Amino acid sequence: MLRWLTAGESHGPSLISLLDGVPAGVELTSDDLKAALARRRLGHGRGSRQKFEQDVLRIHSGLRHGRTLGSPLAIEIANSEWPKWEKVMSADPVPREDLLVDAGTGDEREIARNRPLTRPRPGHADLSGMLKYGFGEARPILERASARETAARVVAGRVASAILEQAAGIRLVSHTLAVGTVRVPDEAPLPAPGDDAALDADPLRCFDPGTSSAMVAEVDAAKSDGDTLGGVVEVLAYGVPVGLGSHTQWDRKLDGRLAQALMSIQAMKGVEIGDGFATAARRGSAAHDEILAAEQAVGATSVPRGSNRAGGLEGGMSNGQVIRVRGALKPISTVPRALRTIDVASGEQTTANHQRSDVCAVAPAAVIAEAVVALTLVDALLEKTGGDSVEEIRAHLEETVSLQSRIVGGGTGGAP
Amino acid sequence: MLRWLTAGESHGPSLISLLDGVPAGVELTSDDLKAALARRRLGHGRGSRQKFEQDVLRIHSGLRHGRTLGSPLAIEIANSEWPKWEKVMSADPVPREDLLVDAGTGDEREIARNRPLTRPRPGHADLSGMLKYGFGEARPILERASARETAARVVAGRVASAILEQAAGIRLVSHTLAVGTVRVPDEAPLPAPGDDAALDADPLRCFDPGTSSAMVAEVDAAKSDGDTLGGVVEVLAYGVPVGLGSHTQWDRKLDGRLAQALMSIQAMKGVEIGDGFATAARRGSAAHDEILAAEQAVGATSVPRGSNRAGGLEGGMSNGQVIRVRGALKPISTVPRALRTIDVASGEQTTANHQRSDVCAVAPAAVIAEAVVALTLVDALLEKTGGDSVEEIRAHLEETVSLQSRIVGGGTGGAP
Amino acid sequence: MLRWLTAGESHGPSLISLLDGVPAGVELTSDDLKAALARRRLGHGRGSRQKFEQDVLRIHSGLRHGRTLGSPLAIEIANSEWPKWEKVMSADPVPREDLLVDAGTGDEREIARNRPLTRPRPGHADLSGMLKYGFGEARPILERASARETAARVVAGRVASAILEQAAGIRLVSHTLAVGTVRVPDEAPLPAPGDDAALDADPLRCFDPGTSSAMVAEVDAAKSDGDTLGGVVEVLAYGVPVGLGSHTQWDRKLDGRLAQALMSIQAMKGVEIGDGFATAARRGSAAHDEILAAEQAVGATSVPRGSNRAGGLEGGMSNGQVIRVRGALKPISTVPRALRTIDVASGEQTTANHQRSDVCAVAPAAVIAEAVVALTLVDALLEKTGGDSVEEIRAHLEETVSLQSRIVGGGTGGAP
Amino acid sequence: MLRWLTAGESHGPSLISLLDGVPAGVELTSDDLKAALARRRLGHGRGSRQKFEQDVLRIHSGLRHGRTLGSPLAIEIANSEWPKWEKVMSADPVPREDLLVDAGTGDEREIARNRPLTRPRPGHADLSGMLKYGFGEARPILERASARETAARVVAGRVASAILEQAAGIRLVSHTLAVGTVRVPDEAPLPAPGDDAALDADPLRCFDPGTSSAMVAEVDAAKSDGDTLGGVVEVLAYGVPVGLGSHTQWDRKLDGRLAQALMSIQAMKGVEIGDGFATAARRGSAAHDEILAAEQAVGATSVPRGSNRAGGLEGGMSNGQVIRVRGALKPISTVPRALRTIDVASGEQTTANHQRSDVCAVAPAAVIAEAVVALTLVDALLEKTGGDSVEEIRAHLEETVSLQSRIVGGGTGGAP
Repeated sequence: MLRWLTAGESHGPSLISLLDGVPAGVELTSDDLKAALARRRLGHGRGSRQKFEQDVLRIHSGLRHGRTLGSPLAIEIANSEWPKWEKVMSADPVPREDLLVDAGTGDEREIARNRPLTRPRPGHADLSGMLKYGFGEARPILERASARETAARVVAGRVASAILEQAAGIRLVSHTLAVGTVRVPDEAPLPAPGDDAALDADPLRCFDPGTSSAMVAEVDAAKSDGDTLGGVVEVLAYGVPVGLGSHTQWDRKLDGRLAQALMSIQAMKGVEIGDGFATAARRGSAAHDEILAAEQAVGATSVPRGSNRAGGLEGGMSNGQVIRVRGALKPISTVPRALRTIDVASGEQTTANHQRSDVCAVAPAAVIAEAVVALTLVDALLEKTGGDSVEEIRAHLEETVSLQSRIVGGGTGGAP
Repeated sequence: MLRWLTAGESHGPSLISLLDGVPAGVELTSDDLKAALARRRLGHGRGSRQKFEQDVLRIHSGLRHGRTLGSPLAIEIANSEWPKWEKVMSADPVPREDLLVDAGTGDEREIARNRPLTRPRPGHADLSGMLKYGFGEARPILERASARETAARVVAGRVASAILEQAAGIRLVSHTLAVGTVRVPDEAPLPAPGDDAALDADPLRCFDPGTSSAMVAEVDAAKSDGDTLGGVVEVLAYGVPVGLGSHTQWDRKLDGRLAQALMSIQAMKGVEIGDGFATAARRGSAAHDEILAAEQAVGATSVPRGSNRAGGLEGGMSNGQVIRVRGALKPISTVPRALRTIDVASGEQTTANHQRSDVCAVAPAAVIAEAVVALTLVDALLEKTGGDSVEEIRAHLEETVSLQSRIVGGGTGGAP
Repeated sequence: MLRWLTAGESHGPSLISLLDGVPAGVELTSDDLKAALARRRLGHGRGSRQKFEQDVLRIHSGLRHGRTLGSPLAIEIANSEWPKWEKVMSADPVPREDLLVDAGTGDEREIARNRPLTRPRPGHADLSGMLKYGFGEARPILERASARETAARVVAGRVASAILEQAAGIRLVSHTLAVGTVRVPDEAPLPAPGDDAALDADPLRCFDPGTSSAMVAEVDAAKSDGDTLGGVVEVLAYGVPVGLGSHTQWDRKLDGRLAQALMSIQAMKGVEIGDGFATAARRGSAAHDEILAAEQAVGATSVPRGSNRAGGLEGGMSNGQVIRVRGALKPISTVPRALRTIDVASGEQTTANHQRSDVCAVAPAAVIAEAVVALTLVDALLEKTGGDSVEEIRAHLEETVSLQSRIVGGGTGGAP
Repeated sequence: MLRWLTAGESHGPSLISLLDGVPAGVELTSDDLKAALARRRLGHGRGSRQKFEQDVLRIHSGLRHGRTLGSPLAIEIANSEWPKWEKVMSADPVPREDLLVDAGTGDEREIARNRPLTRPRPGHADLSGMLKYGFGEARPILERASARETAARVVAGRVASAILEQAAGIRLVSHTLAVGTVRVPDEAPLPAPGDDAALDADPLRCFDPGTSSAMVAEVDAAKSDGDTLGGVVEVLAYGVPVGLGSHTQWDRKLDGRLAQALMSIQAMKGVEIGDGFATAARRGSAAHDEILAAEQAVGATSVPRGSNRAGGLEGGMSNGQVIRVRGALKPISTVPRALRTIDVASGEQTTANHQRSDVCAVAPAAVIAEAVVALTLVDALLEKTGGDSVEEIRAHLEETVSLQSRIVGGGTGGAP
């Protein structure tokens, strides 16, 4: 069982990513993690914060000389802007006079940081969080609800993808399918693991060059209109063995677990497996993936199919095809054209504060989605293979594949 | 914490639904459960199994004199067709000669029941399940993967909806939004709790009469073409208090938990919260729900909004608006026009067996979706309120609402 | 992951045992389960209920033709006395006049069954349960808290021991170490798996004949004094591979998980691993198990030791030695010499009702302890090996043992 | 639900304690946490490490201006000796020439730190961990298995005790009951919350002055003999409301959960609730706690008893009495008189390395036990009360107590 939790406020000293259940012997360096964080900063339409902030990484545990120990990993992403925030976000009490909240008594930005945020922003956790946790202002909520938390998911996901690749040869790719109303055509080819560098070089991590240009234009138009955009991202997992997840109980189904992981990402409002909603409008004769004879098989665990509409998942289990999942992101909620809200201090109608923000965060959302899919797949892989080291998982998986090939071995070795 | 598990094979003696963590004092009778099961049988385009089978209900525990005890509920739905299956599905070993598998030696149907199913059906759990669990035929897999399992979810969901209504005044409604390519128009009104009877009376549990007629035609057309249909269902939860779920950790978010619950339903390939994928194509200025001044509020916990695009969930928490979630079902996988597959006994290309089946199972899927949403909401409710009896939960919730009203009380009582 | 839950009231229609996560291919019959239940009835000093009640077993799911399917098992133990209780324990409401509660209006025993139990019994869940769940009488609590629930654990444990033996060659034995003040001498030999029949034949499942006779006398003396007895039981697990559990996180430690499982048994008040409390009084030089050179090893996974004071667990992991755990049971709480209590209906001091009861339940407690240890070990085994069928678990375990033997292979193959 | 995980190696840069599910509004400062860590250093017979190491504390999240936010707390305890270890424990690969492993090439201590530890120590996780995780030496195991990890538990426990006290008025005390063969007499009085300072001032945190002196002598004798000692600790929880935990399912029982928490502490081999093993030797008439009439009650939730042999837990639930649990620690496994072991590099018989160590760690174990009991009680409290802030928990608990008092209100208000 892989467990992963994150901690940390957006303007606190650091984010912490804790992974428990990581097998021993996974090769990993701090450079790998930094590279993963750098991918999260990509994307046309990102705000200035992505530029001036640096991710200072500290690995507290679980890794020694470039290999995991089997013990929990705790990874810190320090906030390089912390000195500006150490009073307003201090863990210990701060003398009231040190918290400048009145105009005219000091630096304007410092004042803004300290001021109680009594105008909850629509589309954010602000209002529900204040009511749930009993706060009269939004700072204690938005600090944790902020999408900066996803940096901690990305480093956790990088650990997960190292496990997947080294122990099972599974490789993930993520890309942008839509930004606002601009969408990659259905017939466009899917990226494969080798296309990572090309994707990272694209301004929106879109694999279709023509669509990418249109997406850039869409972002620029939204920006000049003082507006924001959402979109759709897709994650592909190549090389997933047959039989992760299970049909036997509702909460063992891999599709359900992937759906939870994706929907838990900030701003995500929709999830699809394979062709998703499009499949719902098809007829049965054109909605499934026919099973073809074994002589066309590539590799022992995979039986060839005529299509992959199911996105590699049938009955809640991986079926040997490429796993394909998508997430729909709502537009960024902090809209330059301010939305209406109330001031809870007065009860009066007002507009939401606008803080510096991105126009479009779809490109990084694909990277984050890739991370949570990786984490979910590791958990499912370990259920299937067991094993406490890369070497042991690999040995177990080899046995599993060998047992499976006896069942679909076909004419000569088919075992009813 | 509410835990729920199901057990049972499609043609086994019975399904079992086990709920652990049900509070004491919930009023419930076996008639309530039977009525819930009857709703799952509804829908134009259902196969004959729905008609000749009866759900024989037995409550083994947790309920006494019409009130829950606080102890686990185990509810059995017995299979009225069991006598036909008691050999082929016997728990204990059966003499080989009793299992008629050769044509010519007995009743044809009995033979069919006993024959090893070596042709895994595309779109089903068959092939992956056989490889995962080490079976050379599909019977051991399809018996559990069958959608009949959802009957156990429906009774569990009925217990959950009794808890929600009696302890917190929460009421759920489900309906059909689309069948194949026929879809309820966006501007059509949403059903409310009082519309249950009308929905159950509609042939497809669709709230828009015109659309319903078109859906019936769509089903009939598919049937005459030897084909099957999927569709889209929606569940609405009225009266959910603010603050179920939490923004603080990925797996505490209510939207993620609802997404898992929905995606875990057989044939589900997509999930949306609120406007879902449509929101991803909007601009930020038209994608969120503005917060309006308190004088327009109805009830203490709910702050009025200008819209409900978010489907009642922001930051992974309920926000006091109607919760609105959707699921996309692929068409039924057992297609009369047989799909291609292999026979694992010979490795040769063949076609999938066709068994008596439904043309369209969207109407019951809405009822099932309602059940899993209810179960998920109970779990989230109990986290918020604690409490081991309906009375205690109610008393706690009242305190919670009172504390919340102090924060959004506005001009007079707003507490920053 | 193995999950197991039980449901059922003591005088309800049935107990249900649900196991989720059982691998496929485990050989098991209803006779195996009945034999396990019969062992739970053993023991000198048991009350009459053990004699007149029969365990009617029904397997609802997960097993077909004597082999598990990989799907959840639901096993019912029906209450053969149900007809006497069907009114007082009816799930559905019962007309008030059918519940005879007044003396003089009917059968005396029927009246007793229906009377509200307003005198909570010391040592039982009665009082705390009534306060927790909001009941003014003890019936709703004692029905579930009763040790009859352990019958459901015993059948679950029988499934678990079949998995352990068939997939990993692990075999469990349980025996009675003490009854009241009579205790097996420290130097007495431990029973091994082959000794099961001898143990079951002993009146107290004690492996030391002399001590057994003294225990019988102790039970008889307590009985004639109108009193009850507790004692100490021990479970031994032979053949457990090295490395179940983990030192890496508090809740992964196998000793902690075994402690929870044992302490969760009704009446259990103490748990020891290995020499337990006796070890706490020793000095370090005489408290640990020295590691001996490999030439003395038996089998690849086990390194020989000079002793087994640790009970097979070091650092929260199995170390290849016999696992040895003990539980201390308080005397049966329903004491013929009635204890003082209050009547919650009046608030007045009174004495607890005495119902027919056992004098001593130590012998069955050993069988129950064996069951929960088996369940805990299956969960830990599956974490280590993964695998969804007996065959796959076995293949994985073989690889694991082979990898381990490379590390302790010694002079020729030692791998630093 | 409170979740807590720790991470960190003994000689790594830091330990991390992560708590998820902490309610908002808990008052807490870094000084509180430092004071808790200081208590863990106490005790006659501790090694020099306790003196020269300092706990450098960093709160990464979840706390602002001395109050919790409702978000996860991540607390770091930095290793002040890190500079000495930064090569041997480096997360990233280190050039081989920087790791001095040969005598004569550098500082002797540095060499010792880098040398592969191929002699697993009896009584430790070393051997099982190496086999489980696939290491040819013990460093990767012992770094995590070390009792230094308990520092992370102590800070987590301090957060928990703040929740308990502020939200529910629950207060914990821990003390030493036995060191080696020296034991506090049964009739000695129990410490109460106010006795904390006196306990911390005692050389062994023993509440009985005479016994404490004998314990000091026992430690000194063991030290001069080159040996080590174990002992018994006890934790008392005052003010626990009735009804935490539940009798309804094996893994909801509070006694089982406490047993797991205690047994998960390094070196713990036994756990008792209340009188534990002593109870098993008593007769029923002298083993339970009689319930006395309400007029003698103190406080609404607690019904008076004639004794507290059950340690405040009946039927797996708190019963309003003081909760009393004990743990038995084996003597420290690193014994100055070296124990026999093998060298896995050669397979030859040898003796275990001896590193600087404590003679007796019973006093700090009591503090650690107090921490894990606090964490367990918070989890159980939140199940009962729900609530996301101290204020909300308090309001809910007040309602709960009020409902309970209606049941045991006696003659005037007793509700059957």
